[in-house]
Amino acid sequence: MTPGGFTARHLAVVGLGLMGGSMALALRPHVDFVTGIDPDDETREYALTHGIVDVVTDDLREGVAEADVVVLAAPVRAIVTMIKKRIGSYLRSNTLLLDVGSTKQDICEAMGALPIGIHAIGCHPMTGKERSGITTSDPDLYKGRPFVLCPTRRTTPATRLRTLALVEALEAVPLEMDAERHDKLVAGISHLPYLLSAALVATVTKQANEDEALWQVAAGGFRDMSRLAGSDVRMMSDILSTNTQAVATLLALFRVQLANLEALLISQDEEHLIDFLTPTREARLKWIENYERDGK
Amino acid sequence: MTPGGFTARHLAVVGLGLMGGSMALALRPHVDFVTGIDPDDETREYALTHGIVDVVTDDLREGVAEADVVVLAAPVRAIVTMIKKRIGSYLRSNTLLLDVGSTKQDICEAMGALPIGIHAIGCHPMTGKERSGITTSDPDLYKGRPFVLCPTRRTTPATRLRTLALVEALEAVPLEMDAERHDKLVAGISHLPYLLSAALVATVTKQANEDEALWQVAAGGFRDMSRLAGSDVRMMSDILSTNTQAVATLLALFRVQLANLEALLISQDEEHLIDFLTPTREARLKWIENYERDGK
Repeated sequence: MTPGGFTARHLAVVGLGLMGGSMALALRPHVDFVTGIDPDDETREYALTHGIVDVVTDDLREGVAEADVVVLAAPVRAIVTMIKKRIGSYLRSNTLLLDVGSTKQDICEAMGALPIGIHAIGCHPMTGKERSGITTSDPDLYKGRPFVLCPTRRTTPATRLRTLALVEALEAVPLEMDAERHDKLVAGISHLPYLLSAALVATVTKQANEDEALWQVAAGGFRDMSRLAGSDVRMMSDILSTNTQAVATLLALFRVQLANLEALLISQDEEHLIDFLTPTREARLKWIENYERDGK
Repeated sequence: MTPGGFTARHLAVVGLGLMGGSMALALRPHVDFVTGIDPDDETREYALTHGIVDVVTDDLREGVAEADVVVLAAPVRAIVTMIKKRIGSYLRSNTLLLDVGSTKQDICEAMGALPIGIHAIGCHPMTGKERSGITTSDPDLYKGRPFVLCPTRRTTPATRLRTLALVEALEAVPLEMDAERHDKLVAGISHLPYLLSAALVATVTKQANEDEALWQVAAGGFRDMSRLAGSDVRMMSDILSTNTQAVATLLALFRVQLANLEALLISQDEEHLIDFLTPTREARLKWIENYERDGK
């Protein structure tokens, strides 16, 4: 079943950061009217004067009351709080409610308790930029990137189809899975890498306290491995706090792999070290070839 | 004391890969004649027909016999073997012998046992490319990059000055330190990052065996953190085998940092988690700002 073209009368975007601003820009051609909701005065001013939205407000109730599509583009726990505390009672019946939070179990569970008549679905676009904020908004942010959809107890077949149409409007690649599966996957490809990057930088910072020349000799390998450690700390802490179990499981698996590597290294067992590293190298080369072929 | 301009009559480059080929290209304007020594027929042919060197041979003795500057640009243990087994007896007195191996203690120790009259110094240019081999040779490879010099028992003040002049000819940035200190630093900024990258890819490969969608959702964070895992396995195994002690020490430090992070995560101690992550983030941002300002 192919979804029809996405249209909406009134889109409300809650949270005008990189994700929300880009969503507003990308969907503007498909909707009559866009309201932006954000607590920050400068952000609202920017969104309005740069034509990212038609109207701005810092009042959630007022902002979403007339919308038929609402996108929650805030940090994960802020989204959960909005869903639990207020938003269900502000929305019109038959509104499509989706979010773009980085973990999905807490959000989808909260969505499942919304009033019947709200069509809610958890989403996670696998995209981003080095910098964030409304000024980095980009209508092409979602283009060609995976867009994960996680059903909730408030996801009807029509909810799903309308969301697929929205994903198509963004030119993103839909990927449907349940929230638990999503959170396990991102624990491996996103949250574990962040923790490794942060722990690496913490380690070499201690080393640099004894020998400052470290910062001078650090080069491309360190640049890549330390990039995630430069992520927004509160954002990452928010994400990690909502995926602790899956992250702890991955950390345990990682420790085993690192211990295996270390044992081979210390015992100078070169044959088995190469046996370990070769399929790992091949997995990486295969992945990056596909990733780059898809134009990322 | 400023070193004079570097000149040589006859440069011999042993090992025509990225490092050796680039060294030959960068030094050609400063020397009368360049011999390239490599066991691979195609590599020698390429170096000759592309004007990277003047003469090629697969015979080490013949290739270095008439040189007054010899650069060993082979894997670390191959360099050590050449120094221990043969090269001292092949060289003329007063030859400058340097290497570009990735670890320095084993090499510098071997150099220290060369005949008196050989002027030997350990070197490690902190540069590289994604791809390697003679076809990737680039006269600008060393430009603006740190070039570590490690003295040996065969490094006279004149050896040092002549090498500094060579580094200046490459437009690289000299950094003088002893071999032990060098090996500790690269354990932190290069070898530990490699092991983390390999262990991460091994971990998510296991995870992907249970859920193949992992490869689809992996994005920019995973791309950066997995890049080093794609390095040449035999080259990395060679490097690691000559720096086991320093790498093991860094791995122990890393495990402590990762365990600290995990404890904060599991206990949901967000305040201390942020206290841990904030200086780490700042250290990374400060470093990358300097690194990029230096045009890297």
